[in-house]
Amino acid sequence: MTTGVIESLALEATSKIVLLVLDGLGDLPDPAHRGQTPLEAARTPNLDELARASALGRLTPVAPGITPGSGPGHLGLFGYDPLTHLVGRGVLEALGAGIDLKPGDVAARANFCTVADASGVVLDRRAGRIGSDVCARLVDKLHASIARIDDVEIVLQAGKGHRFVAVLRGPGLGGAVSDADPHKEGKPIPQSHPLEPGASHEKTARVVNAFVKRATEVLKSDAPANGILARGLSERPKFAGYRERFKLRAAAIAAYPMYRGVASLAGMDLFVPPGEGAAEAFAMVAQQWASHDYLFIHVKGTDMAGEDGDFDAKVGVIEAVDQALPALTALRPDVLSITGDHSTPVPMRGHSWHPVPVLVHSKVCFPDTHPRFHETTCRTGSLGDLASKDLIAVLLANAGRLDKYGA
Amino acid sequence: MTTGVIESLALEATSKIVLLVLDGLGDLPDPAHRGQTPLEAARTPNLDELARASALGRLTPVAPGITPGSGPGHLGLFGYDPLTHLVGRGVLEALGAGIDLKPGDVAARANFCTVADASGVVLDRRAGRIGSDVCARLVDKLHASIARIDDVEIVLQAGKGHRFVAVLRGPGLGGAVSDADPHKEGKPIPQSHPLEPGASHEKTARVVNAFVKRATEVLKSDAPANGILARGLSERPKFAGYRERFKLRAAAIAAYPMYRGVASLAGMDLFVPPGEGAAEAFAMVAQQWASHDYLFIHVKGTDMAGEDGDFDAKVGVIEAVDQALPALTALRPDVLSITGDHSTPVPMRGHSWHPVPVLVHSKVCFPDTHPRFHETTCRTGSLGDLASKDLIAVLLANAGRLDKYGA
Repeated sequence: MTTGVIESLALEATSKIVLLVLDGLGDLPDPAHRGQTPLEAARTPNLDELARASALGRLTPVAPGITPGSGPGHLGLFGYDPLTHLVGRGVLEALGAGIDLKPGDVAARANFCTVADASGVVLDRRAGRIGSDVCARLVDKLHASIARIDDVEIVLQAGKGHRFVAVLRGPGLGGAVSDADPHKEGKPIPQSHPLEPGASHEKTARVVNAFVKRATEVLKSDAPANGILARGLSERPKFAGYRERFKLRAAAIAAYPMYRGVASLAGMDLFVPPGEGAAEAFAMVAQQWASHDYLFIHVKGTDMAGEDGDFDAKVGVIEAVDQALPALTALRPDVLSITGDHSTPVPMRGHSWHPVPVLVHSKVCFPDTHPRFHETTCRTGSLGDLASKDLIAVLLANAGRLDKYGA
Repeated sequence: MTTGVIESLALEATSKIVLLVLDGLGDLPDPAHRGQTPLEAARTPNLDELARASALGRLTPVAPGITPGSGPGHLGLFGYDPLTHLVGRGVLEALGAGIDLKPGDVAARANFCTVADASGVVLDRRAGRIGSDVCARLVDKLHASIARIDDVEIVLQAGKGHRFVAVLRGPGLGGAVSDADPHKEGKPIPQSHPLEPGASHEKTARVVNAFVKRATEVLKSDAPANGILARGLSERPKFAGYRERFKLRAAAIAAYPMYRGVASLAGMDLFVPPGEGAAEAFAMVAQQWASHDYLFIHVKGTDMAGEDGDFDAKVGVIEAVDQALPALTALRPDVLSITGDHSTPVPMRGHSWHPVPVLVHSKVCFPDTHPRFHETTCRTGSLGDLASKDLIAVLLANAGRLDKYGA
């Protein structure tokens, strides 16, 4: 959908939209489980009842054949074309780490490495795979010594093993700079340099290079972690938010920071439920009901089970969502949509390109009367096959929030 | 799909992809044959077995309602958007004639015509429809007298009746020049002139005009074929090839020069099977198996039968493909796709715009368990409706040759 048309038609209204995302929902028939998918195998009486009164269809997250990461998968669902709304690797890493990125922030994926004292050549890009505890201690040490470089604050957060996130926060920074990372051992750490003209990118490169140099001094007695690498440097993108684009007061309810992070790029208010389950998330939806028009709920378990290749676990998460569902439908949302950001088939143990089942329930959705909600019923649903980025328009339309186009 | 994204995700791998194109495969239900299409009427036990384990769908070759020629039909299947990857008529004619076009070549569709001696006015654009034997003799005569013009070689090949192909081969030629053809009788042959600024197009126009003038001198006693016309002048396009775009070593196995020609634009290695049948083509696939990752096989018979309006012949070609199929599946391709470049419905005796059935088989294809492969089962297949140009991404994904998009 052309950005601009939807926005020009968006109406103020009192209707409520709920988007329930079961991460990695789509799957493949599993020969080890009677050729069924987890959605087919799960006992879902509440979902079945909802399906009968809903329009079904399928979403293509990015484009045919393209397997999306979590960032592009959710941007599409939120109505931002993932092919034109690019989010850098450093920014996604920072969002996933729960760092509250501000406009203008530049984020990097970083890690400790081993460098040769004399030559500065990188001997081990992962510093002998130090433990997370060592990583946390060294990140504290860096923070104590290098809290700022000139007028730029250096925000650090330790990750798993040798990994951490570095965020540069200060005036006039740009994200188009090269990696301070040789990407292979046996070479020195290259200087970061601007990839586009402009003082902001030059400033970032200067700060990155100063940070890498000072880190080497601070860490000189911490071998094997006596150096750092920074890559995927990128600026927090500036997207028009939900309020501006769609006249929606939007809330994101997600236990994992990555999904709140992507939602923050769309200007949603962020809420952390007290647990990972659907029941906890739905309780939080009830709390935010009066203050929001659009509520995005993220459930991670389906994706984790898919990544683990655990059919029964994926069925279990789906059944738990089903059991909790009455708490959500009791709120009587004007539009309730259930889908995934991509497929994570159990037999593949990872994300895939396969279209994702989607359900849209409203008083005017064209109910398909399909008895269940799964990959095969969705193939012949009245929503047809849509690009994920077009879902928002369908939700707004079902909510009576889109004006007529033309006279 | 935006060109560039797929390329940026393409991975090196050892998996094998086979694309079997049954030219003009799609059809309409034929009231004269129990309302069945040829795919429905054919006895295809091997294809049926394959279909049950495959994902089905439909391809739109160019855009809804657009009937493609062979060039655009195949470019789409190869992953080149036919609306942006333009191939001139002269180039297609030369490829169809089996001329091995080199980069920089400019090709024209040409024909003999009758001109009035005194005025140079064209009296008959088809030279009284001379026979192919006369055409061949006159092309030889032209070739003997006009092998070169300045530093440009003139490559000629006789066609049917009054038609032939002329290729200009030499340094600094451009394809954007107007026709040396009045397109109606009663007017003189117009001078070719550049359609875009540039010395290369000016040079081509000069050479074309010199060629037409000298041909009139050479042919002055050969009335009714005492002149020539040239149209559809175009330069062999420069497309990034399969190796560069998709990291694939690609082979084209096609009995007809046109299809090898279009495949050559995608940088495929070209192979001529010893016969037109599927069995001969599949035997050649086996020979090229070790040296290639992607094997395109072209079977012409389905299209010819459609053009002839011969239902039984089309059924026969499909059944012959089915009988030969075990030789292909025995190679155990990681991905096997069967489709057409367009529909050629028997009742229409020509190409059409109707979507084309497509089948994709792999370990992760989402088998639809449809019992057969034809126009109607494909309508509810899990591949859904795709643009032909997006098929390559689906094949690469099924072959494990596409990285994840974004984190």
